[in-house]
Amino acid sequence: MPKISDRAVKMPESPIRKLVPLADEAKRRGIKIYHLNIGQPDLQSPQEGLDALKSIDRKVLEYSPSDGYLSLREKLVGYYEEYQIKLTPDDVIVTTGGSEAVLFAFMSCLNPGDEIIVPEPAYANYMAFAISAGAVIRPVMTSIDEGFALPSVEQFEELINERTRGILICNPNNPTGYLYTRQEMNRIRDLVLKHDLFLFSDEVYREFIYTGSPYISACHLEGIEQNVVLIDSVSKRYSECGIRIGALITKNKRVRDAVMKFCQARLSPPLIGQIVAEASIDASRSYKIRTYEEYIERRNCLIDGLNKIPGVYSPIPMGAFYTVASLPIDDSDRFCAWCLEEFDYEGETIMLAPASGFYSDPTRGRNEVRIAYILNKTDLRRALMILGEALKVYPGRTINV
Amino acid sequence: MPKISDRAVKMPESPIRKLVPLADEAKRRGIKIYHLNIGQPDLQSPQEGLDALKSIDRKVLEYSPSDGYLSLREKLVGYYEEYQIKLTPDDVIVTTGGSEAVLFAFMSCLNPGDEIIVPEPAYANYMAFAISAGAVIRPVMTSIDEGFALPSVEQFEELINERTRGILICNPNNPTGYLYTRQEMNRIRDLVLKHDLFLFSDEVYREFIYTGSPYISACHLEGIEQNVVLIDSVSKRYSECGIRIGALITKNKRVRDAVMKFCQARLSPPLIGQIVAEASIDASRSYKIRTYEEYIERRNCLIDGLNKIPGVYSPIPMGAFYTVASLPIDDSDRFCAWCLEEFDYEGETIMLAPASGFYSDPTRGRNEVRIAYILNKTDLRRALMILGEALKVYPGRTINV
Repeated sequence: MPKISDRAVKMPESPIRKLVPLADEAKRRGIKIYHLNIGQPDLQSPQEGLDALKSIDRKVLEYSPSDGYLSLREKLVGYYEEYQIKLTPDDVIVTTGGSEAVLFAFMSCLNPGDEIIVPEPAYANYMAFAISAGAVIRPVMTSIDEGFALPSVEQFEELINERTRGILICNPNNPTGYLYTRQEMNRIRDLVLKHDLFLFSDEVYREFIYTGSPYISACHLEGIEQNVVLIDSVSKRYSECGIRIGALITKNKRVRDAVMKFCQARLSPPLIGQIVAEASIDASRSYKIRTYEEYIERRNCLIDGLNKIPGVYSPIPMGAFYTVASLPIDDSDRFCAWCLEEFDYEGETIMLAPASGFYSDPTRGRNEVRIAYILNKTDLRRALMILGEALKVYPGRTINV
Repeated sequence: MPKISDRAVKMPESPIRKLVPLADEAKRRGIKIYHLNIGQPDLQSPQEGLDALKSIDRKVLEYSPSDGYLSLREKLVGYYEEYQIKLTPDDVIVTTGGSEAVLFAFMSCLNPGDEIIVPEPAYANYMAFAISAGAVIRPVMTSIDEGFALPSVEQFEELINERTRGILICNPNNPTGYLYTRQEMNRIRDLVLKHDLFLFSDEVYREFIYTGSPYISACHLEGIEQNVVLIDSVSKRYSECGIRIGALITKNKRVRDAVMKFCQARLSPPLIGQIVAEASIDASRSYKIRTYEEYIERRNCLIDGLNKIPGVYSPIPMGAFYTVASLPIDDSDRFCAWCLEEFDYEGETIMLAPASGFYSDPTRGRNEVRIAYILNKTDLRRALMILGEALKVYPGRTINV
């Protein structure tokens, strides 16, 4: 029997994936699970998008252009303008979700063995796409004690060598909810400029910024226009994760031409998703405000609730819809499995994402979990109560409560 | 400015792509173009699929499972049963088009430097996906004089070395329309077995077989069940290229587990496309017969017409909806460009795919073009007439007509 590739062996398996069979088994036992582990919002997609879907009147569901429909790219240009990001439709390549944008960015910009520096904890799939391209992620550590702020320039410089080709940030951040300040973004710009690096910037959560702090896009940074590759997606902002529409944006024509070769090989991004996404950009102001206010309330509800549980600590996330919290436990992989396998409170339990999946070094974040606030407040309160009860009886707890 | 990757430089650019600006320019001059160059059928998608699209009544367009909806995978199992391919839903992984299935197959099975043998001419994007995985395509030549039949065992054996990891076939074949016989498939099976290779088999055109010859799937071959990776797509059979739904099918659990890691990284295949694809599998018998008969008539119309033009030769394609024809010309890249830039017949011209894009060695197939029969018969006849007229006056013609 022929063997699978070394890269397939190296590909990480998400710690959440290992929990899925346990969750399925718990459901079979009749246990109700509150899912705090996933990034799928429960909020409705915009009516404009749903209406556009209903009114598709094509007889042939044909290929679209490899870089996406011009009408969608034009609409996106208008959308970015609201964020003071000045683009032309040529700068925008429509991709099959933000995932494909990351993969094609790495494929186009990184050789096997090339290194990129990524602040950790970080979105787990960056590692998968780096392995796909044969590239190496060099993590630079942020810590819960410092609210996951950007590490110092020195910490970046320590990692930079002749194989370093880029820095990857996620802003606002998944999993931490951190939002980089203007000063931090300027530090990144200086590093990028000094070492002539790519700056891959995943900004899919830009709608969800809850403080008065400004959103500083990588595209706002002056002097590195040719270095920036922006990753975007409509998944989170319109609660449309299933339509698989994202975008790769860069002013660097050589990078765009390279990315287009990968786009042409896969022929086209999803036709129907593009139609829905284009209409969703017209989502009413009231949809956006409603969504935004809902997340603010959920965030407050979650963070207040978490910090009231003895031994639990979460910084206040400034954006996105996640937080990384530390729990008074020995091992979050074990705790998350235990919640599904051995624990219930009145027939209910919780599913959390162990933070081990967000660090390349699996010994990091042993007492941390990522919690998504994508449930309504009633459910969120109930889930917090169950978490508190679970921590009281978990055998591996590290404080007595 | 940081540099793009070596793999991006190596990625092929389709010769058709180079023709696109010429076609745009011709259209601007008011020239009508008959597109014989693309694989986008003009036939209607099944009403069942279009109805399913209309009746989607979801409020959240959410992620689907990374391996696709179980209901779709179950439906596909029933579909394959009609072709005597026995599967369970576990054997089927839904992908974003057949393109992603090829990419993930290569990513999962091939290390950088590993080689696969591919009969040429071959679908151009195999090369792109091989480069993405760092793998090397070793072409084994078929020829128009032999109707593009499978090369001898000896020709394969000559290419096999310690880096050889697989054979890739497309059956029925794009671009040649060739259908492998039982004897040929058995020869492939013996090679696969003898050298313990993967057999990647792209069978997206199985609905379109126009002779009484049986369709021998790689999945029919006994003794190599663990070696076969089947590539499939609904794009061609339901005229649904835009929904981006394909499948990777294998009985080899280690390969499936590897592929699933890549699937999980990109989260999910398109939600809406899966709904449309699942409904389309119920397409009425009359839809299938109508489609099939339409292609048979187009094929006859095209091949008769081609072989009547002095100096033109096309074998009779047994399947798919393409043929590779030889023309009495010096260089098909030049001829195809000339048709768009310098020629018209009564304000109309044709766009063909130069065969150079289907060979890794660009000096091959210099007088060959691929012609798709995806136009209605009236247009096809007109296009053939224009081709005949073009060949009369093309400065690089190699016979006097």
